[in-house]
Amino acid sequence: MKKIEIIENILEANETIASRNKQLLDKHRVLAINIMSAPGAGKTSLILQTLKKLKGKLNIAIIEGDVASTVDAEKVQNEARAVVQINTGNMPESCSLMAAMIESALKDMPLDGIELLLIENVGNLICPSEFTLGEHRRVVISSLPEGDDKPTKYPLIFIDADAVIINKMDLLPYVDFDIAAFRRSIAGLNPKTEVFEISCKTGEGIERWYTWVLDQVKANATRR
Amino acid sequence: MKKIEIIENILEANETIASRNKQLLDKHRVLAINIMSAPGAGKTSLILQTLKKLKGKLNIAIIEGDVASTVDAEKVQNEARAVVQINTGNMPESCSLMAAMIESALKDMPLDGIELLLIENVGNLICPSEFTLGEHRRVVISSLPEGDDKPTKYPLIFIDADAVIINKMDLLPYVDFDIAAFRRSIAGLNPKTEVFEISCKTGEGIERWYTWVLDQVKANATRR
Repeated sequence: MKKIEIIENILEANETIASRNKQLLDKHRVLAINIMSAPGAGKTSLILQTLKKLKGKLNIAIIEGDVASTVDAEKVQNEARAVVQINTGNMPESCSLMAAMIESALKDMPLDGIELLLIENVGNLICPSEFTLGEHRRVVISSLPEGDDKPTKYPLIFIDADAVIINKMDLLPYVDFDIAAFRRSIAGLNPKTEVFEISCKTGEGIERWYTWVLDQVKANATRR
Repeated sequence: MKKIEIIENILEANETIASRNKQLLDKHRVLAINIMSAPGAGKTSLILQTLKKLKGKLNIAIIEGDVASTVDAEKVQNEARAVVQINTGNMPESCSLMAAMIESALKDMPLDGIELLLIENVGNLICPSEFTLGEHRRVVISSLPEGDDKPTKYPLIFIDADAVIINKMDLLPYVDFDIAAFRRSIAGLNPKTEVFEISCKTGEGIERWYTWVLDQVKANATRR
């Protein structure tokens, strides 16, 4: 099974670089959060809201991952201490950020001045679950219009998440989404994960998210 | 660049099997449509609506592609002539249907009795653009809550599409989506593609889609 071996080698090489990234981040006491979701679920909106709320309290850097374009980096560039755009381009690298891309991006960042690094992954519920980046926390956003069956159909990405965000709560009256059923699916896959119900548009529920992020950064800063 | 060569070999092997699939489908005069979108954009809903409307007029078979679960196949199984579920499982095969999976599925299908094969790809805007399956038409669904920037951020899948469907038009009053801007982006990438504005929920605009599908099947049946 030559093909399988090669893929295992790619994943193994990725793990090695991810460990190196984590060591570098730890040396500088930077907490890294990998934010993953389907296209259009609200990764950039969540980052923008988080920047607006926390930029007086924390020095935040952003890595924006996209197959093509710089539209997301342009949206956040005035709010963050440092922003690096990664364009993943063609297959197979296109379907997820990979640790080697983060390693390059970190070279361009003034890590000593940074406490929180938000990494916006490529919009995809499949590939990013396989490639760790050296992050400390993994966050998955699911938005109401996608439907409540996403944990059943894309289980792997939810199994590993430290937090799951249900976004676009403002659309609840207009779409079919059973929040209790979604929460049951998540609890079945990953009982320890935090679940947040928010709307990046109206700000509903977003305080709890900020508090959680601040708590993670504090825990990281005081960790031995 | 050994890794690149291997990937090229995978894509090349996929093309070879895809050509074989197309020959088999052509022999039986089956028109195959590959339906692609981000997770939760409405692939299954579109297939269900199409089955309900066209099942008296055409014999339709379905291939359902999912990373995990059989929820979509269960939804359509009473409406179609034949349904095959493919679970793509783990990486790298998980992020798209591939031609070899379709080749297996076609072995389980009574192709002589079928005029239209609807293939629901895995929910992903990246990988399915790289793997052809032997289909005759490629359709991409973009739904309003995902935002109007998807053609800019995931151009490749739109460049190859024979039809682009804007779904969830019923949510237009509640989300920020500039239809003219979306249409301009599509026209820039792929000026020949058909664009449909529909709501699978309310049925808005869906007649034009059925008519287009019927026209494609008729053109295929009379082709030499």
